[in-house]
Amino acid sequence: MEKLKIDRLKKSMNTDKLLITSKNDIYYYTGLMTEGFLIIRKKDKPLLLVSSLFNEISSKNIEISFLEDGKDLTKRLQRSTVGFDETNLKAGIYLRLKKSGIKLKPSANIIKNQRQVKSDREIETIQKSIETTQKVFKRLDFWGKTELQVRDKILELFLRYGVGKAYDPIVASGKNTQYIHYTPKKSKISSVVLVDMGARYNYYNTDMTRMFFTRIPRSHRKIIEDAMEIQKTLIDSMHAGQETEDIQKLYEDMMQRKRYKVRHRFGHSIGLGVHESVDELKTNMILAVEPGIYVKNIGGARIEDMILIKKDKAKVLTTFTQQQLP
Amino acid sequence: MEKLKIDRLKKSMNTDKLLITSKNDIYYYTGLMTEGFLIIRKKDKPLLLVSSLFNEISSKNIEISFLEDGKDLTKRLQRSTVGFDETNLKAGIYLRLKKSGIKLKPSANIIKNQRQVKSDREIETIQKSIETTQKVFKRLDFWGKTELQVRDKILELFLRYGVGKAYDPIVASGKNTQYIHYTPKKSKISSVVLVDMGARYNYYNTDMTRMFFTRIPRSHRKIIEDAMEIQKTLIDSMHAGQETEDIQKLYEDMMQRKRYKVRHRFGHSIGLGVHESVDELKTNMILAVEPGIYVKNIGGARIEDMILIKKDKAKVLTTFTQQQLP
Repeated sequence: MEKLKIDRLKKSMNTDKLLITSKNDIYYYTGLMTEGFLIIRKKDKPLLLVSSLFNEISSKNIEISFLEDGKDLTKRLQRSTVGFDETNLKAGIYLRLKKSGIKLKPSANIIKNQRQVKSDREIETIQKSIETTQKVFKRLDFWGKTELQVRDKILELFLRYGVGKAYDPIVASGKNTQYIHYTPKKSKISSVVLVDMGARYNYYNTDMTRMFFTRIPRSHRKIIEDAMEIQKTLIDSMHAGQETEDIQKLYEDMMQRKRYKVRHRFGHSIGLGVHESVDELKTNMILAVEPGIYVKNIGGARIEDMILIKKDKAKVLTTFTQQQLP
Repeated sequence: MEKLKIDRLKKSMNTDKLLITSKNDIYYYTGLMTEGFLIIRKKDKPLLLVSSLFNEISSKNIEISFLEDGKDLTKRLQRSTVGFDETNLKAGIYLRLKKSGIKLKPSANIIKNQRQVKSDREIETIQKSIETTQKVFKRLDFWGKTELQVRDKILELFLRYGVGKAYDPIVASGKNTQYIHYTPKKSKISSVVLVDMGARYNYYNTDMTRMFFTRIPRSHRKIIEDAMEIQKTLIDSMHAGQETEDIQKLYEDMMQRKRYKVRHRFGHSIGLGVHESVDELKTNMILAVEPGIYVKNIGGARIEDMILIKKDKAKVLTTFTQQQLP
């Protein structure tokens, strides 16, 4: 598996070496989830430099070297042109490498490009991650509970089901739904609640948002219905070959027609990272589609589903149905 | 509180502006735990640029501006000399700022220096963090359990006590103690186990290691006794005014005398970060002291306590006593 990925990566390289520094990328190319510096060399085996604190790590396919100090990295890259991940490498290390004469070239796109299209095994893992998340959704109850109590219940169930969290779960009650990245508090849940959460199973993330409601002010109900309608239209439009900028344009048009302000992107690719970037949709990409409407002093709405891109359509993977309006 | 810290920071600045990018530093100077870009300006209020996704954030003492796109940061720093945190700023952002003519100067030391000496309020918070960690230690039982079961119990208790984890807990049984940053597995715990864990309470971390054992091979017992002895000698030697390099030297001397290889530092400062750097010990610094011995095919030992530096001595804050040799 990893060998194929490395071969493909070598083909797309336009520098002598590639320096890979994010844990997710290192895992993707080596099967080892660790901090460290992974160096891809055109002719040799990949070389992983890790702190000597990680003395448990071993591998057959990767040369592993334990870092005694910061100079080791410089030595290994000396006299080379090195592509690096500008979205992850720390400026201090960049400056140190540069000072010792190494030619550096931003190459995050080359490093991360392969991660966009998911393999069958990755799709299966993500489906298991979603399955667990949906098991948790089914076991939640809200009425009379506080946001924090629901948040803790989510974390407790993740732990019980043997998964991590993709990110800090959002549980927002009533008007608190007007905030996008909201931090749960002691507010009691009465008529409407937004839950944005996902498991991390075998390092693969779920990102899913549902709204649950009973009696609800007409003004807020309208917002939720609009968000649901917009989301359905977006997903129905999606298919391989499409540019994400066009989907964003469609989202913005629909929002403007309904006189809502656009506050964020329509969605994002997801996998080892919760938010992965993507330009053109391709078969077997997985995206989270999450249009959101936020109105001051009234409340907000966001519905988020994960979809698998197919030739002519998008298949919704997150099948759990939110509680309908009564 | 935060005003005082910012005034002190302004006095130590040697650039027009400081760009603060780590969440812990932003929290330290603003009381807001958020991703973002905090700009300290000599004459104006601090300015916090955050993604518009964080529309919940507000503050009286800090000017807050929601980022529409990446250009906002560049605009706010134009025509200035800017000190930045080279241990945190991403190389891509560094290059973008540099390209637009901004003069950049590595200033992590200036930004983080104040965090080394803890205020009374910080010491109190850390003591509560330790208290919770010790409550968890007291409730653990091991015999017949797997490493993973004990790890999950720790996470469950953290959740129940309303705290986060400072880092992924290490639970290593028998010979697995030879690995430093070990990942818990399905190994059954029989005669000896190392537990390295800590709570994160109100963003302040605990880092604590204990070993529990009953019947144990003589070779491994010797290693544990040596680690305990070395740790006691180190702590007894510590006091304000000392250089950490001298403590490291003492540690290395003791290790060499006993013919053990030194595998890591004797310890580190701790607070909002789990591993904070420190050169000279000062009154009211808090450190974790964690000498470790790791012998291939036999096993390892590490004992880790947190201490508060006083004028002539170090006060041990982590009072929970590990199970003695029987």
